[in-house]
Amino acid sequence: MNRIDGRSNDGLRPVSITRHFTRNAQGAVLIEVGNTKVICTAMVEDKVPPFLRGEKKGWVTAEYEMLPSSTGSRKGRDRSRGKIDGRTVEIQRLIGRSLRSVIDMEKLGERTIWIDCDVIQADGGTRTASITGAFVALYDAVTWLMEEEVIDEWPINGYVAATSVGINQNEPIMDLCYEEDSTAEVDMNIVMTDKGEIVEIQGTGEERPFTRDEFQKLMALGEDGVYKLINIQKEALGTL
Amino acid sequence: MNRIDGRSNDGLRPVSITRHFTRNAQGAVLIEVGNTKVICTAMVEDKVPPFLRGEKKGWVTAEYEMLPSSTGSRKGRDRSRGKIDGRTVEIQRLIGRSLRSVIDMEKLGERTIWIDCDVIQADGGTRTASITGAFVALYDAVTWLMEEEVIDEWPINGYVAATSVGINQNEPIMDLCYEEDSTAEVDMNIVMTDKGEIVEIQGTGEERPFTRDEFQKLMALGEDGVYKLINIQKEALGTL
Amino acid sequence: MNRIDGRSNDGLRPVSITRHFTRNAQGAVLIEVGNTKVICTAMVEDKVPPFLRGEKKGWVTAEYEMLPSSTGSRKGRDRSRGKIDGRTVEIQRLIGRSLRSVIDMEKLGERTIWIDCDVIQADGGTRTASITGAFVALYDAVTWLMEEEVIDEWPINGYVAATSVGINQNEPIMDLCYEEDSTAEVDMNIVMTDKGEIVEIQGTGEERPFTRDEFQKLMALGEDGVYKLINIQKEALGTL
Amino acid sequence: MNRIDGRSNDGLRPVSITRHFTRNAQGAVLIEVGNTKVICTAMVEDKVPPFLRGEKKGWVTAEYEMLPSSTGSRKGRDRSRGKIDGRTVEIQRLIGRSLRSVIDMEKLGERTIWIDCDVIQADGGTRTASITGAFVALYDAVTWLMEEEVIDEWPINGYVAATSVGINQNEPIMDLCYEEDSTAEVDMNIVMTDKGEIVEIQGTGEERPFTRDEFQKLMALGEDGVYKLINIQKEALGTL
Amino acid sequence: MNRIDGRSNDGLRPVSITRHFTRNAQGAVLIEVGNTKVICTAMVEDKVPPFLRGEKKGWVTAEYEMLPSSTGSRKGRDRSRGKIDGRTVEIQRLIGRSLRSVIDMEKLGERTIWIDCDVIQADGGTRTASITGAFVALYDAVTWLMEEEVIDEWPINGYVAATSVGINQNEPIMDLCYEEDSTAEVDMNIVMTDKGEIVEIQGTGEERPFTRDEFQKLMALGEDGVYKLINIQKEALGTL
Amino acid sequence: MNRIDGRSNDGLRPVSITRHFTRNAQGAVLIEVGNTKVICTAMVEDKVPPFLRGEKKGWVTAEYEMLPSSTGSRKGRDRSRGKIDGRTVEIQRLIGRSLRSVIDMEKLGERTIWIDCDVIQADGGTRTASITGAFVALYDAVTWLMEEEVIDEWPINGYVAATSVGINQNEPIMDLCYEEDSTAEVDMNIVMTDKGEIVEIQGTGEERPFTRDEFQKLMALGEDGVYKLINIQKEALGTL
Repeated sequence: MNRIDGRSNDGLRPVSITRHFTRNAQGAVLIEVGNTKVICTAMVEDKVPPFLRGEKKGWVTAEYEMLPSSTGSRKGRDRSRGKIDGRTVEIQRLIGRSLRSVIDMEKLGERTIWIDCDVIQADGGTRTASITGAFVALYDAVTWLMEEEVIDEWPINGYVAATSVGINQNEPIMDLCYEEDSTAEVDMNIVMTDKGEIVEIQGTGEERPFTRDEFQKLMALGEDGVYKLINIQKEALGTL
Repeated sequence: MNRIDGRSNDGLRPVSITRHFTRNAQGAVLIEVGNTKVICTAMVEDKVPPFLRGEKKGWVTAEYEMLPSSTGSRKGRDRSRGKIDGRTVEIQRLIGRSLRSVIDMEKLGERTIWIDCDVIQADGGTRTASITGAFVALYDAVTWLMEEEVIDEWPINGYVAATSVGINQNEPIMDLCYEEDSTAEVDMNIVMTDKGEIVEIQGTGEERPFTRDEFQKLMALGEDGVYKLINIQKEALGTL
Repeated sequence: MNRIDGRSNDGLRPVSITRHFTRNAQGAVLIEVGNTKVICTAMVEDKVPPFLRGEKKGWVTAEYEMLPSSTGSRKGRDRSRGKIDGRTVEIQRLIGRSLRSVIDMEKLGERTIWIDCDVIQADGGTRTASITGAFVALYDAVTWLMEEEVIDEWPINGYVAATSVGINQNEPIMDLCYEEDSTAEVDMNIVMTDKGEIVEIQGTGEERPFTRDEFQKLMALGEDGVYKLINIQKEALGTL
Repeated sequence: MNRIDGRSNDGLRPVSITRHFTRNAQGAVLIEVGNTKVICTAMVEDKVPPFLRGEKKGWVTAEYEMLPSSTGSRKGRDRSRGKIDGRTVEIQRLIGRSLRSVIDMEKLGERTIWIDCDVIQADGGTRTASITGAFVALYDAVTWLMEEEVIDEWPINGYVAATSVGINQNEPIMDLCYEEDSTAEVDMNIVMTDKGEIVEIQGTGEERPFTRDEFQKLMALGEDGVYKLINIQKEALGTL
Repeated sequence: MNRIDGRSNDGLRPVSITRHFTRNAQGAVLIEVGNTKVICTAMVEDKVPPFLRGEKKGWVTAEYEMLPSSTGSRKGRDRSRGKIDGRTVEIQRLIGRSLRSVIDMEKLGERTIWIDCDVIQADGGTRTASITGAFVALYDAVTWLMEEEVIDEWPINGYVAATSVGINQNEPIMDLCYEEDSTAEVDMNIVMTDKGEIVEIQGTGEERPFTRDEFQKLMALGEDGVYKLINIQKEALGTL
Repeated sequence: MNRIDGRSNDGLRPVSITRHFTRNAQGAVLIEVGNTKVICTAMVEDKVPPFLRGEKKGWVTAEYEMLPSSTGSRKGRDRSRGKIDGRTVEIQRLIGRSLRSVIDMEKLGERTIWIDCDVIQADGGTRTASITGAFVALYDAVTWLMEEEVIDEWPINGYVAATSVGINQNEPIMDLCYEEDSTAEVDMNIVMTDKGEIVEIQGTGEERPFTRDEFQKLMALGEDGVYKLINIQKEALGTL
C-alpha cells in the first residue's frame, strides 16, 4: 500500500514539541504531528473539585477544543450551540484519564492542574497529539511546583504518550492523517507508559468488526509508536 | 478471591431478557443483568439526519439515561442541569457505534432507528447491558420492518453483545457489579459479534496502568462472556 | 355513547399497583391504569431547599418525565432541547402540590422527599396516574422513615388520589384514554382525599366553555373515581 | 373579617382599563386592578405555528413576564437564569387557553395573534388581570383585522374575564391582593364568559384540602366577580 | 434638510420624565423622548457582587430589555432564545458604566443599586433615553437611602445624561428617531456630565468612515443636547 | 511618567504580523503586539445570513475568544458557562463593524467572510490587535477570492487598523498593556482608515469623566498609532 504522504505503514509523521510556547501557563507546549498542531497548556489552581475536598489529594482535568479555523470548512464554536459536542466530551475525558494514570495525587496535594488542549490546525490524531503534548506541559507545571517549593515530592510515575493506529484497505497503519482516518475500517487509540503498560486502549470497528489477529497487529504497531513518541518527549524535556 | 455475591471470577450474573415490555416501540426489551435493569427500545423514524440525506442509507442512533431513582442516592436529571453529563454522552455514542457495526445501512434504506436505553435500576455494567438489550430491541424493530414490507432484505449481519471485565485486587474478573467496579484497578468494556470479532474495546487503567499480559487475560474473559450473552439473546429471540 | 374500549361512561380502566418495583428508592411503585404505565418513586434526601432552611419543616417535590418510547411517535428528550416542556412543568408542579396537601411538614422534619414519575407507556391520564401512584410511593418512604426511627410521628393526614374526567360528544366520561382525551371538548383533573375534600381541581374548556351543570356532573364523576382509586391504594398498601 | 384594604369579602378592587397605551401593537391595554398593573398587548403575525400549517386555522398564544421592579424585592429576569420559571409557564399557558376558548380559529384564518402580558407592578392576581386585560387587547386587534379587511367575519364568540377567589381564615373572599394571597388556605382562579360558562377553573388547597361546600361558595363569588369585570371590559370597549 | 417630524437638525424631541411611575422600586421613572418610552427603575440590594465583597464599596449595575410589543414587528423575548442578544449586552453595559462614573462607590457602601430599563415603546435612542431616565431613578433611590439614614454622605458627583447624534444625508443631526437612525451613515452616542465632561462616547461609521471634522460637529451637537437633557432632569427632580 | 516597559508615552509596543500561520483558512495571521498574541483567520463561506438572502450582497462577521491559558489566572471557557461573556460580545461586534466599514458588500457578492480572533496570550489591547490582524487575514482571503476568480472586482476600499489609548495618572498614553489598562482613568479604542477617517471610536471614563481637551489629545495619539500600524500591515502584505 502506498500511503498518501509516502510514509511506510509503520511510520510516524514528523513530530515537533515546542516548550514555553506562551508565557502565562506553568506549562505551555506547541505539539506538531505532521500537519496537526495543538497548543497544550497546564495551569495550577489552588483548589480541588468538590468531590475531593478535604481528601488531601490533587486532581488533573482536561479541556479540549478545536479552533473554528482548524478544519477545512469552518467548525462552529461549541459556545454558539450552547452545548459541548459529544466527540469533544469523549476526547477531553480521555486526556484527563490518561494523565491522571501517571500522577500520584497525594504527592500533588490539594490542587488542580488544568490541562487545555486547543487545536489550531487539524489533520487527524488530534486527541493522541493532545495527550502526548499535554504530558510535557504537565511535566513542566510539576517542575514549576517543585522549583517554587509548593510540593516536595516528585508526583509523576512515568511518561505517557499516545498514538492512533488503524486498518485501512485491510492493512494496519500507524498514525493516521485525516484523509486516512476518514476511510479507515478500524480506528484505535493507544495510550501507554514508558514501561510498556497500557493506560487506555480504545478500538472501534465502525466500518466493520475486526479480528483478534488484526487487533494484535494494531497493538504492536501502537506500542512501537508510543515508545518513539516518549523518546521525543524526553528529548524536548532534556531527560533523555 | 471471594466475590461479593459469591460468583466465580469468570461468572456472569443471571441475565434475563423480556421482549415486548412496552407496546409503542417496534422493539421494546427489559434486560436484567443481576440487579441492573434497563429498558431498551427501538423506534423507526422515516427520515435520516442531515448528513445522510439523499445517500440512500439508513442510520442507527442511541440515547441513554439513568432514571433519578436508579441509583442509591438520587441522580439529578440532565435536563435540570441544562447539559448532558459527559459520561452519558460517552455511553450513548458507544451504544450507537456498536449497533451500527452489524447493520447494512443500504439495506435499511433512508430511515433512522432510534435506540433508547433508560436505566431503571443500576448496579454496574449499565452500558454493556444496554448494548446487549438494545441489540434484541433492534432485531425486533428490523423484524417489524420486514413484516410490514417496508424493507425487503435483512440488514443485520451478526449478533452483538457486550460485557465488562476488570481487574480487582490484581485478579481478572467478569461482569463487575457496582461495588466491584468502584474499586477496580482496571476496567474494560468489550463489544463483540457472534463470530468472535471485536466491535469495540475500551480499556482504562485509571487506578494504575496495566500490562499486556493482564490485557490478554481480560480479553479472553470478555470473549467468553459475550458468547454466553449472545446465546441468551438467541434464546430470547427464538433463533437458537 | 360507545366508548372505544367498551367501558361505561362512569367506568375506570383496570388499575394495578406494584410496590417495590425497583430497590434503590425508599418507595418505588409501578402504577398501571389501562395502558398507561408510570414508575413512581419516593427518595428521602436529608436537606431542604434554600427557602426552607432553618424552618424545621420538610418538603415534598416532584419531577415528571415521559420516556421517549412511551408515546406512539418518539418523544424527544427535554435535555436535548435544553429546556423543560411547558406541559411537563405544569404536571410536576401539580403532583408536588397534591402530595404536599396531605403531609404535615413539621412532622416530616428538615428533609425533602423527592418524587419521580417516569412514564414508560402513555395512554392518557398520565398526570393523574402519577399522583395516585406517587402517593403510594410516598407512603412507603414515610413508613421507612418511621421504621428507621428517623421521624417519630406519622406525618400523612389522608390518602390522596386523582382521576381525569371530561366531556366527549357532550357526555361526561370518567378516566379518558389518549384517544378520548384528544377529542374531548372539556378536560378536568380532580385530586381529592379519602375524606371527600378537594385538593386540586383543574378544568379546561379548550374546545368550548362549559356550563355549571356540566361542571357539577364532572365533579360527581371525579369524586366517585377518586374513592375507587383510594380503595385500590389501600388494598396495595394492606391498609384496607 | 376585616380585609387589609377595608373591602368587603365579596368586593373587587378598583379596576381601570386604558386602551391604546402604546402604539405599535394592534391592541395595547394597561389594566390596573388595585395596585396590580399589567400591560397587555395583542400583535398580529401572518403565520401559524408548524402544527397548524395548511390547516386554514389561526392561533392565539400568550407570553407573560414580570418586570424585575414589579415586586417588592427585585425579581431576576428569566433570561439570566437561562430558563423560564415554572410559574410563568403555567400562567402563560392559562392565558393562551382562556383566550382561545372564545375565538373561532377558522374565521381568524392562517395567522397568529401574540398576546404579551408584562406586569409592571404586582399586588396579587396578575394572571387574572392579564386575562381580563388581554381580552380587551385581543378585541382591539381583531377589530383592526376587520377594519383592514384582512378578515371578513367576526371571530370572537364571547367576552372572557377572570378573577381570583380564595379562602382566608376560613372565609371565602374575592380578588385577593398579594398579602391575602400569601396567607390564603385555598386559592382559586376562575375564567368565565359573559354567558356564565366556565372556560377554566383552577383550585388549589396547598395549605389544606377544601370541602365541596367551600368550593360552591368560591364558585358563586367568582362568577359574580367575572360578570362585573366583563361589564368593565364592555365599558372600556364602548360595547356596553 | 427636512427632518421626518419637521424638527431642525439640532432639535431634541419633546422629553417628559415621570417620577414614581410604579411603587415597589426606590426610584421609578417613565421617560418619554418623542415616541420612545422607557421605564427606568432603581432598586437597592444589600449586597455586592463577589468581586467586591469585603471592599467596603458599592456597585451599580444595569439591565435593559425591550418589551416584545415595543417595536413595529414583535420582538421575541431573549429568554425564549436562551441567550441574551448581543446588542442588549452592549447597551446594558453602557448604561452601567455611565451611571457608575458619577457615583462615589465608597460613600454608597456595600450595596448594589440595580437599574432596570424596560423599553415599552421604541422609536430610536432607547439607550440614551435609558441613561437619562435611569439617572433620575438612581437619584431617587439615593435620596431614599439618605432619608432612611442607610448612608450619610451624598454619593452622586454630578448629573449624567445622554443623547444620540448622527450624520444623515451628510448632515449632522441631533437625537435620531428610528427611521433616521436606520438610514444614518454615522451614529454616535454621547454621555456627558453637567460639567461638560465626557463619560462615554461611541461613534460608529458602519455605512462609511467619517472625518475628524464631522466628528467635531457631532460632538458639539451632542454636548448641546446633553445640557438640555440635564436641565430637564433637574426640573423633574426639583433641583433646578 | 515612567511606563512599565520603559516606552515613551506615545510609543507603540513592537508589532509583528505573520501571515499563513495555519493552512486551512484563506487568511491566517498571527499578530503580536508586545506580549499580546492573537490568531486572526478569515474563512469564506458560500452563503449569507438570513437577513441578506437574495440581496446580492456579502457579509463579514467576527468571533473573538480568549484561550483559557491566555491570561494569568485561567479563564473558564464560555461554553462551560453556557453563555457568551458580555465583554466578548461587545468585542466581536466591534471587530465585525470595523472590517465591514471598508468592504464593498456588493463586490463581495453573496458570501460571508468569517473572521475568528483567538487570543493565545493576552497583555492588553486584544481587541485592537484583533482588528489590526484580522484586516490582514481578510485581505488575504479577498486576494484568494480574486485569484480563484470567484469575484472579479476588488472589494476593499481602504486599510483599517486600531489601537488603544488612555489616560493613566493624568497623562495620555498610547497602546496600553494589561497593567496600565487596569489602572487607567480613561480608556479609548480608535479604529481608523489609511485616509485618516474614523471607523469607530469608543471612549470610556469609568474611573472618572474626562474633558474635551483630554479627548483631543487621545484622538491625536490614536491617529498617530493607527498610521504606524497600517504601515506595518502594508509591509506584511508587501503593498507598501
